[in-house]
Amino acid sequence: MQKIEQANARAVEIMLSGDPVLVDVVPASVAIPELATGKIILHAGPPITWDRMCGPMQGAIAGIAVFEGWASDLDDAMAKAAAGEFDFQPNHHHNAVGPMTGMTTRSQPVMVVVNRASNNKAYCAINEGLGKVMRFGGNDEGVLKRLAWLRDALAPLMADALKLSGGIALKNMIARGLTMGDEMHQRNVACSGLLLRELSPYMAAVAKDNTLLSESLKFMGSNDQFFLNVGMATGKSIMDPVRNIEHSTVVTAMSRNGTDFGIRVSGLGDQWFTAPVEMPEGLYFPGFTEADANPDMGDSTIVETIGLGGFAMGASPAVAGFVGAGAASDAAVFTKDMAEICCTENPEWTIPGMDYLGVPTGIDIRRVVEVGLAPTINTGIAHKKPGIGQVGAGVVRAPMQCFTDALRAFAAKEGLA
Amino acid sequence: MQKIEQANARAVEIMLSGDPVLVDVVPASVAIPELATGKIILHAGPPITWDRMCGPMQGAIAGIAVFEGWASDLDDAMAKAAAGEFDFQPNHHHNAVGPMTGMTTRSQPVMVVVNRASNNKAYCAINEGLGKVMRFGGNDEGVLKRLAWLRDALAPLMADALKLSGGIALKNMIARGLTMGDEMHQRNVACSGLLLRELSPYMAAVAKDNTLLSESLKFMGSNDQFFLNVGMATGKSIMDPVRNIEHSTVVTAMSRNGTDFGIRVSGLGDQWFTAPVEMPEGLYFPGFTEADANPDMGDSTIVETIGLGGFAMGASPAVAGFVGAGAASDAAVFTKDMAEICCTENPEWTIPGMDYLGVPTGIDIRRVVEVGLAPTINTGIAHKKPGIGQVGAGVVRAPMQCFTDALRAFAAKEGLA
Repeated sequence: MQKIEQANARAVEIMLSGDPVLVDVVPASVAIPELATGKIILHAGPPITWDRMCGPMQGAIAGIAVFEGWASDLDDAMAKAAAGEFDFQPNHHHNAVGPMTGMTTRSQPVMVVVNRASNNKAYCAINEGLGKVMRFGGNDEGVLKRLAWLRDALAPLMADALKLSGGIALKNMIARGLTMGDEMHQRNVACSGLLLRELSPYMAAVAKDNTLLSESLKFMGSNDQFFLNVGMATGKSIMDPVRNIEHSTVVTAMSRNGTDFGIRVSGLGDQWFTAPVEMPEGLYFPGFTEADANPDMGDSTIVETIGLGGFAMGASPAVAGFVGAGAASDAAVFTKDMAEICCTENPEWTIPGMDYLGVPTGIDIRRVVEVGLAPTINTGIAHKKPGIGQVGAGVVRAPMQCFTDALRAFAAKEGLA
Repeated sequence: MQKIEQANARAVEIMLSGDPVLVDVVPASVAIPELATGKIILHAGPPITWDRMCGPMQGAIAGIAVFEGWASDLDDAMAKAAAGEFDFQPNHHHNAVGPMTGMTTRSQPVMVVVNRASNNKAYCAINEGLGKVMRFGGNDEGVLKRLAWLRDALAPLMADALKLSGGIALKNMIARGLTMGDEMHQRNVACSGLLLRELSPYMAAVAKDNTLLSESLKFMGSNDQFFLNVGMATGKSIMDPVRNIEHSTVVTAMSRNGTDFGIRVSGLGDQWFTAPVEMPEGLYFPGFTEADANPDMGDSTIVETIGLGGFAMGASPAVAGFVGAGAASDAAVFTKDMAEICCTENPEWTIPGMDYLGVPTGIDIRRVVEVGLAPTINTGIAHKKPGIGQVGAGVVRAPMQCFTDALRAFAAKEGLA
C-alpha cells in the first residue's frame, strides 16, 4: 500500500505544481501535425465509431466536415461519415480537449496552454458563445460562419496579443475566479472578465483594424463562458504529466462522447475504462424538457479532474441554482463530498465562503469505490437531435462502473486481486 | 406613526426604482457650473474649515491647488489655504461625491451617472488606482501627473466611448457584482471587470490612438477599485431623489471629512447631523500600524447608504479577511445585523450565498437608535500625515450620536418629543 500512497503523493505534487500559461492561438494542424493530412476529426470523450455516436455528435461532425470542405452539404457529410470517409479520434489522444461534441479539425484555431512546470502543451478550440453552437450539435450556416470568423479574425488577433504579452498566467487567475463565484465549468464569468482585462491592452497594441478589435472585445466580453475552453486546456496541461505514474490510483482524465463515459488512471497508463453515460439532472431552457436531452457529453470534465466544476461548487452558490442542484447555501455540500474521494486539497485554489478550504484534488479510484461517491460534474445539456443546440444545464455523476472496473484492473496489475 | 411608515415606504420605493446609468465623463466645471469661477475645492464629508481638517485632507487640498495652478508649490498652497484663499464646500452640496479626501475641482474630469427613474445626475471623479494617490492624501509629482493623464487622456476616451454606447446601465451590473463577491466598497474587482468588458468595445471603436487605448485599458484593468467611484456616483444618484420626503426617517447620506461624520435624513431636509469620526479597526499594510492611521474619511459611505459595502458583507466573504472583520464564513452576520436597522431588502440586489437575501435597504434612524446598532462601514485607511497615502483597510461604525441627534430633531419637528 505504501507504493500506492507514494505514487499518489507524487501525482498530486505534479498537479499542485502545475503552472499553466496561455501563450498562443494556432491552427490545429500546427499544434497537432497529424491533422495536416487526411480527414481526421477529433471528438470529445473516449474512442467511438460513427454508428454509436449520439445525435449532436453526428450533427457537429456533419457541420465540421462542411466547414473543412470535405463535404458539399450536411447530407453529403452524413453520408460520407457513414461510409467511413472520416477518421474519428479522441481529442485526448492528441494533447487536446473540446467541450461537449468537442470538434477539433485541421483549420480550426486552438488555444495553446503551456504547463511551465513540465513544459507540455495542451490545446482547446475557442469557445463559440451560447445558443446554437457546434459544441451542442449546431451546424447551420450561422454556426459555420462564426467558426470562420474565429479562424480568420479573432484567432490571429489573440495570437498576436498573446505573443506580445509573453503569456497569460492562469493559476492565479483561476484562484481569483474561485473568490468571485466561478467554479470554471458552468460559471466562468469572472475568469472570462479577468482574462479580457489582461489581454485587451495587448489586443489594442497589436490591432491593425479597430473595427475588428471592437468586434473581438465585444465577442469575448459578451460570452460568460469564454474562459471555459481556457480552463479545459489548463486542466489537460496539468493532468497530462500525471499520466503513467506506476502504482498511482489517481484519475488523469474523465471524458464523455455522449454515449460512453471514460476515465483514465495514472498507474494504468492510457487505457480507457468506459461505461454508458448518465443523464444529467438539471434545469431546462423554456420550451425544452428532459425528453429533449442528450446524455452527458464532452471533455470538459477535465476541470472536475483538477478539482474545479462540481468539485468547487462551494465557491459558486450562484451556479447551484443554475444547474438545479438545490439551495445556493447547499453548494458547499458538494465540495465536502468530493473531498472524501480525493487525495488532498489545493492550497492555492481556495474557497472564501468555506473559510478558504482548498478545492478537492486528485481523485483516487480506491476512495470513489470505498466511499461509494462518484465524481459530481456540472454540465451543459445538448438537445439529442443534431442541429439544435443547448437546452439546459445540470449535474451528473460519473458512472461508478468506470471506477470499479479500473480498480479491478489496477488490483490485477498490482497482483492485489 | 402611519405618516412615518408611509413616508419611508415612499423613500424605499424611490430607492428601489432607481435606474442609474453611466453616460459621460466631463470636466467638473461643466457638470457643476459653480466651479467655473473662483477657487472652489469640493471635499468629502460635511462642511469643514481648514483649521479643523485632518492631515491627508490638507495634503490633498495642497496637491489639488497646485494641480489647478492656484499655487506654485505645496508650501505655497498650504499658506494660501490657511489664508482663506480657497473656498471649501462639500461634494454633497453639488450632486457630487468623492472617495476619502474627495477632491473635486474645476478641471478634473467627473463621471456622470444619470438616474433615469428621476432624471437627476450625480458626479464622481475617476478612481486613481492604489498606492500613493490624492484620495489618500498623496500630492507629489507622480500623483499630479496621473491626475493630468486622467484629465487629458483617459477622460476624453471614456467620454467618447460612453456616448457611442448610449450609456452603461449599472443596476444589473451591481446585481451581478454581488454574485461575484463584490460588496462595492472595499471590493470592486468584479464590477470593474464587468464595466471594462462593456465599455472596451466602444473604446476601441472611438480610439484615435491605439497606444493610448492600450494604456487606458491597462489602467482600468489593473485597478480592482476602478468601479468604486462609479458605484459612489450610483449611490448619490439613487439617494438624492429621496431627500426631503416629509415625515421620512430614512438616511439619505452618510459621509465623513476625516474629522466629522455626518448624516442627512430625508424628513429633515439637507441638515447635517455630525459627530466626531471613529477610528477604523482593520488590517495594516506592512510597515504601518494603527498609530499611523487617520480616522474614518470619505463620501464613499454613500454605498452603505444604498445597502452595499458593509451592508452587503455577506456577498463578499473574501472582503471580511481583507478588512479584518473576522472569519470569511462570518461575513453574513454583518448583513443580518444591518437588516435590523433597515426598512426593507432589495429584491434585485441579492446574495447567492445567503440564499438570495436582498441587501438591507433604507436605513431608518429610529431602528438604529432602538436596536442600538450603528451602520457598519467597510473603508480604506489613510495615513494621518499629508502626502503618504493608504496604510490599510478596515471596518468602522457610524457614530451613534449622529442618529440620536437626528432622531431628537425629527421628534421635535414632528411634535413627538
